[in-house]
Amino acid sequence: MQQYFVKGQASSEVTIRDKDTIKHMFQVMRLKEDDEVVLVFDDGVKHVARVVDVLDCRFKLVKALPDWVELPVQVTIACGFPKGDKLEFLAQKTTELGASQLWAFPADWSVVKWDSKKLAKKAEKLEKIALGAAEQSKRNHVSDVQLFASQKDFLARFEQFDKVLVAYEESAKKGEQTAFVASLGDVSKNDKILLIFGPEGGISPDEMAAFERLGAKTVGLGPRIMRAETAPLYALSAISYALELTHSSS
Amino acid sequence: MQQYFVKGQASSEVTIRDKDTIKHMFQVMRLKEDDEVVLVFDDGVKHVARVVDVLDCRFKLVKALPDWVELPVQVTIACGFPKGDKLEFLAQKTTELGASQLWAFPADWSVVKWDSKKLAKKAEKLEKIALGAAEQSKRNHVSDVQLFASQKDFLARFEQFDKVLVAYEESAKKGEQTAFVASLGDVSKNDKILLIFGPEGGISPDEMAAFERLGAKTVGLGPRIMRAETAPLYALSAISYALELTHSSS
Repeated sequence: MQQYFVKGQASSEVTIRDKDTIKHMFQVMRLKEDDEVVLVFDDGVKHVARVVDVLDCRFKLVKALPDWVELPVQVTIACGFPKGDKLEFLAQKTTELGASQLWAFPADWSVVKWDSKKLAKKAEKLEKIALGAAEQSKRNHVSDVQLFASQKDFLARFEQFDKVLVAYEESAKKGEQTAFVASLGDVSKNDKILLIFGPEGGISPDEMAAFERLGAKTVGLGPRIMRAETAPLYALSAISYALELTHSSS
Repeated sequence: MQQYFVKGQASSEVTIRDKDTIKHMFQVMRLKEDDEVVLVFDDGVKHVARVVDVLDCRFKLVKALPDWVELPVQVTIACGFPKGDKLEFLAQKTTELGASQLWAFPADWSVVKWDSKKLAKKAEKLEKIALGAAEQSKRNHVSDVQLFASQKDFLARFEQFDKVLVAYEESAKKGEQTAFVASLGDVSKNDKILLIFGPEGGISPDEMAAFERLGAKTVGLGPRIMRAETAPLYALSAISYALELTHSSS
């Protein structure tokens, strides 16, 4: 059943006001009276909802659904601004893989320079992609997107996390293969984890020093060299495997 | 250091004959006498090699390198023909993530129909992408690509594997979350694992029955619905996490 995110709280009758949602519901999907969809509200709970009035875009909630597919920890993926449309790719894929947030920041070795106008436009585009991907992968929450104008703004947000991990290629090259597993071994439910990835050129020594001063730990993600846009997918998949599949089987 | 795959066995002096490799070496990278690159031969061993003669494309091997970055098991990813350029995407990403082989077959619910001419052209393109990705991610082997013209040809190859697993969305929906971990729990080094993924529409009941008759087991890959081209990346990342990172830390 088609799923839509609706801002606000669930109530027995709901009127849809978001233009894009209305367009998709009644022009793309051509919903008519008595058709059913799934609506997800701010609390993440999914409800089966039935069309009551097409012209008013009004639905009646039929029942709440029990399914909850969010990762047991809240993972924020933060990338140094990468080239091209890699952030668009990451907005879709990190949403499918369960990230809570996708952040990006101007890294020392980022090739692209985006001014505030470009950042605002890019963020808006990424938010739409994340919303679409969250609907398609039946998430309970849409990944939050944030693009930082400066490294300082990004660093100022570290303290809200329980754990900050940096995927560091040099760790992988040196054969470091235990820190990531150890880091996931002592997380608690709902912990906030920040996972940092460099742009194509990697993370500069200055950046690494700043991250470490704020308590970040470096982790290797296996022996192969991954592209900037592939490493976050590896990390999210591994987190799901470690905390959703392995945990449930033990 | 730039890495190139060279067909054949290592010998103290090597002449490069592949046109694309020569072009990349001497036109793109502009190698000159005494420059060094890494050459990887059929056995997967990497060698530092020094240019002896630019016109002859001749190298002298300097030393063998100890690094080995292949997964401890040989994973073949087999996908029902997906739409658009998703196989191209998968050729790159599954190579980065360590797959031994990328296979694709005409699934019952594949939308695309490719004739033998199209298949040959597509395979050639995918091989080039896999080669480039293997060089960039510093693999010891290039992922092998094979596109099957019929399901029968594909099914005939099952018996060469130690384990056949099918990523089945219905398993995920039913909350099945233990089979994948259990399957990876009893693999041995160098086991051959076939991992099957449906096209966008999924795997038909007839196909599933045929797979199961040949010993395939269904596995769920977590609670979220992933796109056809994302699920193989999840599986490969999880295998690396389970067998490379977790194992090395225990």
